[in-house]
Amino acid sequence: MQDQQIRVVFEPHGRAVFVLPGTKIIEAAARAGLTVETPCGGQGTCGKCRVQITQGACEPCKPAREIFDERQLAEGWRLACQAAICDTAVVHIPQGSLFAGRHQILAERQAGAAEEVQPAVRKVYVELPAATLQDSAADLQRLAAATGELKADLSLLRRLPELLRAADFKGTAVLTDRRLIDFEAGDTSSQCYGVAFDVGTTTVVGSLLDLCSGEELALAARMNPQVSFGDDVLSRIKHTSEAPAKLAEMNHTIIRAVEEMIDTMCAEAKIQRKCIYEVAFSGNTTMEHLLCGLDPAQLGQVPFVPVHARGLIVPAAELGIAIHPRGAAYIFPVIGGFVGGDTVAGMLATRLDEQDGAVLMVDIGTNGEIVLAYDGKILAASTAAGPAFEGARISCGMRATTGAIEKVLLKDGVHCSVIGNADPVGLCGSALVDVAADLLRQGIVSPTGRLLKPDDLPDSLPDALRDRVFLDEQGQPEFLLAGGAPGKNQPRLSIKQRDIRELQLATGAIRAGISILLRQAGVRTADLQRVLIAGGFGSFIRRSNAQRIGLLPAEVDHQKILYVGNASLNGAKWALLSTAARKQAEQLARKAEHVQLSNDPQFQTEFAEAMIFPEK
Amino acid sequence: MQDQQIRVVFEPHGRAVFVLPGTKIIEAAARAGLTVETPCGGQGTCGKCRVQITQGACEPCKPAREIFDERQLAEGWRLACQAAICDTAVVHIPQGSLFAGRHQILAERQAGAAEEVQPAVRKVYVELPAATLQDSAADLQRLAAATGELKADLSLLRRLPELLRAADFKGTAVLTDRRLIDFEAGDTSSQCYGVAFDVGTTTVVGSLLDLCSGEELALAARMNPQVSFGDDVLSRIKHTSEAPAKLAEMNHTIIRAVEEMIDTMCAEAKIQRKCIYEVAFSGNTTMEHLLCGLDPAQLGQVPFVPVHARGLIVPAAELGIAIHPRGAAYIFPVIGGFVGGDTVAGMLATRLDEQDGAVLMVDIGTNGEIVLAYDGKILAASTAAGPAFEGARISCGMRATTGAIEKVLLKDGVHCSVIGNADPVGLCGSALVDVAADLLRQGIVSPTGRLLKPDDLPDSLPDALRDRVFLDEQGQPEFLLAGGAPGKNQPRLSIKQRDIRELQLATGAIRAGISILLRQAGVRTADLQRVLIAGGFGSFIRRSNAQRIGLLPAEVDHQKILYVGNASLNGAKWALLSTAARKQAEQLARKAEHVQLSNDPQFQTEFAEAMIFPEK
Repeated sequence: MQDQQIRVVFEPHGRAVFVLPGTKIIEAAARAGLTVETPCGGQGTCGKCRVQITQGACEPCKPAREIFDERQLAEGWRLACQAAICDTAVVHIPQGSLFAGRHQILAERQAGAAEEVQPAVRKVYVELPAATLQDSAADLQRLAAATGELKADLSLLRRLPELLRAADFKGTAVLTDRRLIDFEAGDTSSQCYGVAFDVGTTTVVGSLLDLCSGEELALAARMNPQVSFGDDVLSRIKHTSEAPAKLAEMNHTIIRAVEEMIDTMCAEAKIQRKCIYEVAFSGNTTMEHLLCGLDPAQLGQVPFVPVHARGLIVPAAELGIAIHPRGAAYIFPVIGGFVGGDTVAGMLATRLDEQDGAVLMVDIGTNGEIVLAYDGKILAASTAAGPAFEGARISCGMRATTGAIEKVLLKDGVHCSVIGNADPVGLCGSALVDVAADLLRQGIVSPTGRLLKPDDLPDSLPDALRDRVFLDEQGQPEFLLAGGAPGKNQPRLSIKQRDIRELQLATGAIRAGISILLRQAGVRTADLQRVLIAGGFGSFIRRSNAQRIGLLPAEVDHQKILYVGNASLNGAKWALLSTAARKQAEQLARKAEHVQLSNDPQFQTEFAEAMIFPEK
Repeated sequence: MQDQQIRVVFEPHGRAVFVLPGTKIIEAAARAGLTVETPCGGQGTCGKCRVQITQGACEPCKPAREIFDERQLAEGWRLACQAAICDTAVVHIPQGSLFAGRHQILAERQAGAAEEVQPAVRKVYVELPAATLQDSAADLQRLAAATGELKADLSLLRRLPELLRAADFKGTAVLTDRRLIDFEAGDTSSQCYGVAFDVGTTTVVGSLLDLCSGEELALAARMNPQVSFGDDVLSRIKHTSEAPAKLAEMNHTIIRAVEEMIDTMCAEAKIQRKCIYEVAFSGNTTMEHLLCGLDPAQLGQVPFVPVHARGLIVPAAELGIAIHPRGAAYIFPVIGGFVGGDTVAGMLATRLDEQDGAVLMVDIGTNGEIVLAYDGKILAASTAAGPAFEGARISCGMRATTGAIEKVLLKDGVHCSVIGNADPVGLCGSALVDVAADLLRQGIVSPTGRLLKPDDLPDSLPDALRDRVFLDEQGQPEFLLAGGAPGKNQPRLSIKQRDIRELQLATGAIRAGISILLRQAGVRTADLQRVLIAGGFGSFIRRSNAQRIGLLPAEVDHQKILYVGNASLNGAKWALLSTAARKQAEQLARKAEHVQLSNDPQFQTEFAEAMIFPEK
């Protein structure tokens, strides 16, 4: 049984998502990568999460009636933490209602504000006086008199006299830092672009930005083509070590993808490549190494030593990326072999060290990165969750693409939402969390993770669910999610015992990491002021379900759990837009203490305990 | 008649020169590029110019007897301003007797002292601790922990893990500034070399230096092969403008010469090219442009605008110079289109701005560069002297190479000294100055520059000289210097009227420049504390003769006129040996005010006046 999904568009960001009826607006917004503020913990009392539903507004609930007057209610004003989606809707989120992480400010900036935009690339239109015997300053110094002290590469100095004179000394100096990288005839100061990339092990996302306004002009996402050399970082490291040419091959593979994505985004935004002056990359340590052609061999063995940990600024051409010929590439600093630039970018985007109280950031993926900020300190760790959340090693698992069940509700039956509104062909990680949580709630799975046989099921179980528990050919129980109806050519999608075990391993790894960081920091779980869920996968899990299976600590009020979207990409955007952000990224990376979880004497115990689902 | 020349070796510098008998030691030392201090003006009273003649000492003169005791005199101690060379000699110059310009300190350094050596290139031997789970810092940061904060190019980062591990983490970090350019296995910290070049329009001189000790390991000099495209800078600028490929051709020509000279010096010093980490270049503005492949077109037309005026640091590889693959090239800042990096280097080498009182530096050549330092200010100008001093446009003129008469004395006859002790084939600039001065003294040439006909010669003239004045086929007088004896196959070398006119033009240009700078500065000629003669040609002129023909002001005590040798090369050496010197060069270049002589309303008048030889 597949439920109808409803389209919701968020303004002014223009982002659209599909959700099940009854989904709270705050959750739908999170799915769109927009985090709404809920200081009261989603109690509907503070009124901070106000949004205006300009189309498809549902009936106002009681807390909204107390906060808004009749006219406002008629205009569609609602509380995002209370109001649910009941129909196709357009929701306007005011700036003041957004979580004050940098990713949000970026969103605001896209809507207009631009105070913090101070990119490394600067364009200055100048009209220079002609040289005379009284003022025979050198070409570069004549320009510098108008722009401030300058340096220039030989390659540009060799062309400078011609460029200046062809433009009749009226043109636009293109500067990165104090380096002149070009002189363009006429006033081109409004044409200044950059591309930010989040290079994930599985997915690469790029964003073409207008560096003047901060506006996002195009977005592109691709599967990282390196997956053909292995799903996880270790298999790719192993591949590069097989022969000297393999590293180059791996490097070219990602560079080609980046190049193709730049092509696509330029075409979409109708922008010439040479007007892109900078590219910023965040990625995990291995991805950044492979991007730069740095040997990742040491990242594949204890003690996981990177070649380089600071932020890098290199000529984009040296990476094989054809933007402006003297354009630069910025690559994020890393914290350690397994806590990379993507985590640093996430810390930057969420202003992690500026939040009040203890804040936890978790990026759930094949490698789970966990960062705890408290008392001016930062602890960072990574934990090998394995690929269960990506749908791998799950009997009917798949990535979160078209045809994947991405949300499941077990109640009086099985309600599924499928990506792309297609027929289901498998289930992805977020749905696995949903299923596991509801199987626990319904008593079909025990806290130890045992999937009960039909005879052991609790009496209270609705028949619609009871009828879905079968014994397979080996006599093992399985829970049928979808398909399997006689006569229909649909795949039989079911959850098996070993799927639950895989999920327990993945969940346990993340949860043990969280526990160890909290213990080392002396922070009680209940004292966490926020838990920020970053990353593509994280944005799609249901907080209450993640808490039910123990992936996230149950002691934290689930309204304190915020989705921060692709914080890595947002951080990379920030690095493009602000040199101050780069400095801050460097400081964050250095400030963060890298905790090697496996070094902790209690790691095994914590891990074993975390694998058990919470009792209730 | 050709006089026998005597070899003199100066210690501890090991430099040898050939001089005529009776040459003062102070002059012979100047010919060897060593300037002896003479605070008393060469009166033999201060005793500051003491030297020890360890072989070939002449009889002590009276001032020496007053200053030294018997034992010292027996040991060969003499006053350089008084003692003359009478026989093959070895002269030891103590450090305290040398002029305290940087070129001298460099000479001293070659003999041992090394306090001021702080090159941009630094080698640090390190033994790094192995990485552990507790200390899993990145490779570059592990190294930086031992050397201080570091950056590295991608090209090196790509090799760093292998370099560190092949060396078992024991090796030598090669740094330029805060940039790591290599990591060499084992302790190579004593193998650190650089090459300084003075790129002249006519001559290129290179010096291979040990950057640890400052010692000069090899020296090479070549004719600038660009002379095949024209003798002077303007004809070369014109050549490059003929077609786009011509600039590249001109550039490759000098780069090939530099490369060949590095080869030769490396072979001589038995040093590998990859152990040369930096190259420094000083040259006039056009030579520096051609070296860097910068378009000199604007230097060939009013108002003579360079592309770039600041010091440049570029990858040597980008210039096509194959030293260490990540080695750098430093190119001196320039003051203007015709006052170049060679002048700045000279100012640096002579510590021009640190001298007491008003000091004039003159580099006499095809372009005469004139710098006046006074009251903390610096004025700099260049003047087109023409090629007379290089021997061009003189009927029997030639460059100062083997066979050139380089010194002439007219007394009871003609005494000539010939370079290489060969038969004379022409005369070079320094001899032209000698001849003109003595022709003036003898009354053979009038102050207006007229060469008298035999009938007009003064009665007092010795017959040996009178017999050398002839009328040529056009009825013009000429003075026979050498050759012309019947039966002997020797070229007839004579001075003609038009040679005197060429010299007047050249002399007038320099002298007018000096006058204008002095007038603009409000400095009286007599107040000049020193006149420093720089450059290859200047080192070989006789001060009194230069004063006699008005090339240098007669009002300056000729003992205040000092030869500072190839100050441009010495400055380039300094730039290799000291980053502080580079900063100072930049400051000097910016501090210097570029005076366009042709802009001065009195330039024509001054020039016309300066062409007349002084009366006495």
